[in-house]
Amino acid sequence: MSTTSLELRSLITPEGELRLSLEEREVAPPGPDEVVIRVEAAPINPADLAVLLGPADVATLSVEATGGRPVTTATVPPRLVPLASARLGKSLPIGLEGAGVVVEAGAGARHLLGKVVSAGAGRMYTQYRKLPASDVVPFPEGVTPQEGASAYVNPLTALGMLSTMRLEGHSALVHTAAASNLGQMLNKLCIADGVEVVNVVRSAEQEAILRAIGATHIVNSTHPDFRKQLTAAISETGATLAFDAVGGGQLGGLILAAMEAALVAKVPSPGPYGSPVHKQVYVYGRLDRSETTTPPAVGMAWGIGGWLLPYHLTRIGPEETQKLRERVAREITTTFASAYTSEISLAEALQPQAIRRYQRKATGEKYLVRPND
Amino acid sequence: MSTTSLELRSLITPEGELRLSLEEREVAPPGPDEVVIRVEAAPINPADLAVLLGPADVATLSVEATGGRPVTTATVPPRLVPLASARLGKSLPIGLEGAGVVVEAGAGARHLLGKVVSAGAGRMYTQYRKLPASDVVPFPEGVTPQEGASAYVNPLTALGMLSTMRLEGHSALVHTAAASNLGQMLNKLCIADGVEVVNVVRSAEQEAILRAIGATHIVNSTHPDFRKQLTAAISETGATLAFDAVGGGQLGGLILAAMEAALVAKVPSPGPYGSPVHKQVYVYGRLDRSETTTPPAVGMAWGIGGWLLPYHLTRIGPEETQKLRERVAREITTTFASAYTSEISLAEALQPQAIRRYQRKATGEKYLVRPND
Repeated sequence: MSTTSLELRSLITPEGELRLSLEEREVAPPGPDEVVIRVEAAPINPADLAVLLGPADVATLSVEATGGRPVTTATVPPRLVPLASARLGKSLPIGLEGAGVVVEAGAGARHLLGKVVSAGAGRMYTQYRKLPASDVVPFPEGVTPQEGASAYVNPLTALGMLSTMRLEGHSALVHTAAASNLGQMLNKLCIADGVEVVNVVRSAEQEAILRAIGATHIVNSTHPDFRKQLTAAISETGATLAFDAVGGGQLGGLILAAMEAALVAKVPSPGPYGSPVHKQVYVYGRLDRSETTTPPAVGMAWGIGGWLLPYHLTRIGPEETQKLRERVAREITTTFASAYTSEISLAEALQPQAIRRYQRKATGEKYLVRPND
Repeated sequence: MSTTSLELRSLITPEGELRLSLEEREVAPPGPDEVVIRVEAAPINPADLAVLLGPADVATLSVEATGGRPVTTATVPPRLVPLASARLGKSLPIGLEGAGVVVEAGAGARHLLGKVVSAGAGRMYTQYRKLPASDVVPFPEGVTPQEGASAYVNPLTALGMLSTMRLEGHSALVHTAAASNLGQMLNKLCIADGVEVVNVVRSAEQEAILRAIGATHIVNSTHPDFRKQLTAAISETGATLAFDAVGGGQLGGLILAAMEAALVAKVPSPGPYGSPVHKQVYVYGRLDRSETTTPPAVGMAWGIGGWLLPYHLTRIGPEETQKLRERVAREITTTFASAYTSEISLAEALQPQAIRRYQRKATGEKYLVRPND
C-alpha cells in the first residue's frame, strides 16, 4: 500500500513568479533493495536556498492558503529571470540531505528497518522518501535524526577539502568565511587529523567562535594589516591551497598573492617567474556574485577554479566516497556535530517571515526542517 | 686552449639603472661529454626581452662607448624597482635559445663536430657557448643556423599546448594573440595533427595572416559581435581549453563564459551548477599586466591558471621532452619554420633605436641576433 507524503516544491513561472507549495505525493511500496524513510530532520543549507528561492526578491514574498495549504509567492526581478532559464516552469523538489527512520524495507534491506539513517540524495523536504538501500547510511545506536540531519553536505565537503589537499600534494590550507558551520567543522576535523588551517573571517565575533573551538590561525579581512597577517599565517603553515566561499572580488587573488609572497621570501633568488610551487584557490561558494580577480603578482604556478562536492566525489570514486560517509556516521556526534538555532515544520518553512530569517545566512544561525511535525 | 667570447649582459643596479653591456668571457675547452658551439643565430623572444630590459623605461635609453664597447643605460621607474628585486646588482646572461655550429667536442661527443645544432639552455646571446652534449639537438643535413635558431621556445610551447590538451582530456583549443609567431606555428602544427584551434585576434590584418596559413576559426575581439562569434566557434570545435597570452583583463574570463554558454546550450536541462564539463584557461603570457577577471557565469567546473613551458616539461618528464625536441629538429623547415624581419649583431642589439623597435613586439616582426657578425 502506498504512503501519502507532503512535499515542499519550488516553481518559477516563465513570467518570473516564484511559487512555493506543499504537495501530496504517493510513495509506492519499496522494491526488494529499497527502503522508505520517515524524514524527521533536514537542514536548510545555502545550496538548498539557491534552489528554494532562485533569484526571487524576498522583499516581495507573500502567502495565501489554497485548498487549506499555504502557497507562497515572490517576484523574480525581470533582469534575473535568465539566471533561472533552465528551471522555468518546472516544479523542483528540495532538501539535499536529512535523516529519518526506516519504516518500510524491501526483502534485501530488512536489516535497516527501524534504524536511524542519513540520506544525501536530495528531495528531503518531504515526509516520506523512498530510496535504494545503498543510498542511506545507518548511524550507530543512539544517534537521533536531529543529530544526524547534516551528515552529507558539510561533513563530506570538509572531508572533501582534506582529500583534495592530499590528492594534490598540499599540506595545509586556507579557508574563507571560516566561522560558518562548515568552517567550524573543518577546524574540528583538521585538529583531529593534525592539519593546519588558516581561517579568514571578517569580524571579531567570528574570530571568537573559532578560538572557542581551538582554531589557532585566524586572520580578519577587515583589519588594516590583513595582507601582512595573512602572508605571515600562510608562511607559518606552508598552506598552498585555499577554499574560498566568497568567490567574487579580490579575496581569492589576495590569497594567491600572499602564498606567492610567502614562498619567494623563503628562497634566496626566486627568478623572473616567481616560485615554481603550485598555489591553488578553489571557489566553492558565491557569497559575492561579482567577478573574481587575480592580480599579476602570483608567479606562473597558480590556479583558481571551481570546486563542487559532487564533482569531487566523482573524482575519488564510489569506494572512497563510501569510506568518507562511514567516517561521518561514526563521528556524527563529535567531529561532525551540527547545531541548529531553529526547528520549523514544512508549513512554517513557507511563511514569509521565516523565509526572510533563514535566507540571511547569518553566522551561527542554522535551520532544521522537521517534515513530520 | 680557451676561446674568448663576447657576451651580452643585463644588470639592474640597486639604484634602478639598467645597464646592457658586451663582456669578454673565456670559454674553457669542453669536457669529455661537452661541446662548444659557435652561436650563429639566436632569436629575440618576449621572454628574452623580459630579462634584457626588466621594467626599465625605454624612453630613457642612451648609449655610450666604454673601452671601445657600447654600454647602454636606461632608468627603471622607482615604483617598478621592487619588481626586479630578485635580480638587483646581478649581471644576467640572456638568450633562451639559438643555433650554431659545434666547433669543439669532448671525446664522447665527437660525432657532433661540425654539425648545426640547437640549444635551449639560455645564455645564447654570446659568440661561443659550452654545453653538455645532451643539451644540444643536431639538425638534419642542410638545415642552416638561421633556420634552426628558434627550435626551442615556440616549437616546444606549441607542442606543449597540444600535449597539455591531450593529458587533460580536451580535444580542441582556443588561442589568444593568435597571429603571433607562436600562434602561426600552433596553427601549422594543429593542421598537421588534425586538431581544431579557435584563434582570437584583434585586427583584420592579423586575421589575414592566419587565413593565409590555412586557419579556419578566427574571431576578432574588437568586433561588436565578438562574444557571439567566440561562443559559436567554441561550440563548433568543442574547445574546452584555452591558452591566453594576454593574461590580464577580461579575455580569459570571457573565454570561460563562452565555453560554458556553448556547453549548456547543448543540454536540455543544465541544472543549478551549470555544465559539469571542466573548462580551463591557461595564462602563459602577460601582454596585459592588469588583474585577470573571471565572471560568475562559468558554472562550477572551471579553472584559470598559469602555464610555463619549463613547468610543463618537468610534468611530462625528460623522455617525453626529448621526443618533442627530436620532432622539432625533423620538422624545423616545415611545421616549425620561423621567419625574421631583421638580423642584428650583438653591438646593434645594444643600440637604443634598435631596442625601441624590437621591444614593441609588433605582429609579424621578429628579430634574430647574429653574435658572430
